[in-house]
Amino acid sequence: MGNSKNTVTIIGAGMSGIKAAVDLTNAGVDVVVLEGRDRLGGRLKTVRTSDGGCYDLGASWLHDSIINDVFNYAVEIGTDLYYDDSGYAWYCKDGEILPTEKSHRVFAETLQKAALVYSNSGLPDVTLKEFASSFVESKPLITDSNREIAPQMVRFMELWHGIPWNVMSTKFGLENHVGRDAFVRGGYDSVFKSVLGQANKSKLEIRLNTEVTKIIRRPSGTVEVKTLNGDTFESDYAVVTIPLGVLKGEYTKLFEPALPPQLSHTIDMTGFAALGKVVLEFESVFWRTDLDRFVVLADKNVDEYKAGPFAAPLFFVNGYLVFGRPVLISLMAPPTTQYLEKNLHKVMEIYRPALGQLRVDKSKPLPRVTGQYVTEWTQDKFARGSYSACMSGTTFEGSEIPFVEGAGNVRFAGEHTTADGAGCVHGAFVSGRREAARIIKEMREAKKPKSRL
Amino acid sequence: MGNSKNTVTIIGAGMSGIKAAVDLTNAGVDVVVLEGRDRLGGRLKTVRTSDGGCYDLGASWLHDSIINDVFNYAVEIGTDLYYDDSGYAWYCKDGEILPTEKSHRVFAETLQKAALVYSNSGLPDVTLKEFASSFVESKPLITDSNREIAPQMVRFMELWHGIPWNVMSTKFGLENHVGRDAFVRGGYDSVFKSVLGQANKSKLEIRLNTEVTKIIRRPSGTVEVKTLNGDTFESDYAVVTIPLGVLKGEYTKLFEPALPPQLSHTIDMTGFAALGKVVLEFESVFWRTDLDRFVVLADKNVDEYKAGPFAAPLFFVNGYLVFGRPVLISLMAPPTTQYLEKNLHKVMEIYRPALGQLRVDKSKPLPRVTGQYVTEWTQDKFARGSYSACMSGTTFEGSEIPFVEGAGNVRFAGEHTTADGAGCVHGAFVSGRREAARIIKEMREAKKPKSRL
Repeated sequence: MGNSKNTVTIIGAGMSGIKAAVDLTNAGVDVVVLEGRDRLGGRLKTVRTSDGGCYDLGASWLHDSIINDVFNYAVEIGTDLYYDDSGYAWYCKDGEILPTEKSHRVFAETLQKAALVYSNSGLPDVTLKEFASSFVESKPLITDSNREIAPQMVRFMELWHGIPWNVMSTKFGLENHVGRDAFVRGGYDSVFKSVLGQANKSKLEIRLNTEVTKIIRRPSGTVEVKTLNGDTFESDYAVVTIPLGVLKGEYTKLFEPALPPQLSHTIDMTGFAALGKVVLEFESVFWRTDLDRFVVLADKNVDEYKAGPFAAPLFFVNGYLVFGRPVLISLMAPPTTQYLEKNLHKVMEIYRPALGQLRVDKSKPLPRVTGQYVTEWTQDKFARGSYSACMSGTTFEGSEIPFVEGAGNVRFAGEHTTADGAGCVHGAFVSGRREAARIIKEMREAKKPKSRL
Repeated sequence: MGNSKNTVTIIGAGMSGIKAAVDLTNAGVDVVVLEGRDRLGGRLKTVRTSDGGCYDLGASWLHDSIINDVFNYAVEIGTDLYYDDSGYAWYCKDGEILPTEKSHRVFAETLQKAALVYSNSGLPDVTLKEFASSFVESKPLITDSNREIAPQMVRFMELWHGIPWNVMSTKFGLENHVGRDAFVRGGYDSVFKSVLGQANKSKLEIRLNTEVTKIIRRPSGTVEVKTLNGDTFESDYAVVTIPLGVLKGEYTKLFEPALPPQLSHTIDMTGFAALGKVVLEFESVFWRTDLDRFVVLADKNVDEYKAGPFAAPLFFVNGYLVFGRPVLISLMAPPTTQYLEKNLHKVMEIYRPALGQLRVDKSKPLPRVTGQYVTEWTQDKFARGSYSACMSGTTFEGSEIPFVEGAGNVRFAGEHTTADGAGCVHGAFVSGRREAARIIKEMREAKKPKSRL
């Protein structure tokens, strides 16, 4: 690239990288996006089946929808969205847990105490497992059943955060979502493509299958990005949207000179989750059709550190209500995620007992599975898991700051670099926008005639 | 009273006054409590029926139970408490509103937007009615049914705050409760009596039927409290626990010299609610027995400013689950409260159509009402309503400060004088404790030998 042009190399073609590319190219900046995979989208991945199924194996929801710019954009472009929030039914290995049993209220109170009382206390962080266990132990007025079931309901948080409750922070990360969750029924790829479509194509080059091996800040003030296939990209800025899970393993080799200590410390200390997803298509619907969400709890007598039936909770979205199809979209957390993403043939071994609980007519066998789609994020060298997470004992609060500060003209974007929408698609989006805006501002200031002073 | 003794006159024998009396007498202070009514308890009022019914016509719940000292105390003394929180069923004039209809989610999102977004905006306060109406109007993706029903669900807040939504603040007062709500099944009188039982009886005098007419700060440093029956009580301090509703009408006549301007301004500007209660005993149970709470919504086509069937929402606690008796405990808000508290014979005129919605078997007539208990707080000259409330356009936040500052040795306590537990029994309790502690501290400091400087 010539020296007269303003140039930016963006590493990663997920939502944050593409949003940065859109804003930069529209400001007249020449952008090259380097993507390691053979596809765009990063941790957005929509599978479309031959008979019209549309399943997101990456992000599925627009969270925090009343303060979510991607939600507003998706609505504007007419994306097919569905609020999958009519309510929850809860199951354990002994069947459905009825509302009159009230463990769901003890669960809610546990989270309230954590988020509204414990968080603001001067006490040290503890794991959510420790917190929930001691909460129900000391709680008056609740039943033995509550004491057994409510902590298992607390493990439902594993299916938001994608990390086990025995490492999950009590003080951070239990904030409520702000607004309803909208399930992207029309496929997240449609939103992504629409965002990408806003780029100034004449200024944008995207290279797939291009794995970055070095990001070097030159004394001259440029950034050199080297790739596995031997290319070198020199530019005014680099925007690094590499997932936190990959940064953790690679940052010491990737960056020259080394990253600022505060930034490498944050990369080391912030958790990276392993939320996984299993989509199961059946011959027919065998579950309740009046509620959008089901949770099958773990059995406290089963070893929670080893993947197996009832070892960890499983979350289901009622695909019949979403799509009108006999499909369940399920979320899983560690250790289930790592185990099933590595052993796709073991899915029904773990899911069958849980599905048995969802079955309304216990006299009938489970219908045949006609399709199975499983995530592979933990097996994917360009992801190594799902998204950033709040580990107990680390201060998640402010963990975005070293990323926002960056390292000179090596900038960072992605869900792990923002407090607004951390872990979410809209977080990635605003982080890409943020970095583009900063770079554009700095480029404009550099071109201004110098002040006399 | 002699000058050598430390003396306090407490006006009002509700929870705040009695808690202050307990702490003061145990610190050796001589206390006289002057109570206008012929009974103790203030806005706690438990009715016990001949066949074992126990209904609170004043406060019924221990709210914010994970940060509520009265809850902890009630548990400690073995009070019979019941968590009436298995869930809600919602009804309108056309029958039950099923969860799949999802208006309850639009309702929840409206409150989230108000509490988490609008509250923190720089925008001026608006009434909850305006806010909810414009929220559903501009909201994408929701149904026509949501647009009609969700705002009526928002009016449910009237049954917490006891004021109509067309004067209710959007920016203040929509905070979540912290912890579960415990219904005081054993009667709030048992908690009150136990607190009172902790007083040092030899230091305590309580006079019923003693209406206070003047509270005079003497230049000598004492406070003179005059009563309607001609008595004068001179003491070192007065603790005024007169309800805000009464202060509003009487403060200009009551206090000499006049109250500090900031305090009289706060008395004028803070709202005072009119939450009312109707307890109905029936021959038999005709409602759902699987959920603790029911709400029958108003019909938007009925004039909401005039009491009548479906003019305002009604809230019901399932007394069958609480007491095992065929009883419903209902809350009402203005204009229903004022109307029914004045016209006890009109109760069924307004309630019958709502009760018809709760009826599971529509083929059967409503069972006969065998008992009816209705509050009279708006008709009670010593209450003039229920509790303090967040009116739109007034800054409820910080409204306790002028009360906490007080007027020299004329001190204030009660639910309206505290940010912790405002409007609640535990708020009254902590305010009484606060004033006692302050007075005890000042008395001790006054007795200390003067420093040489």
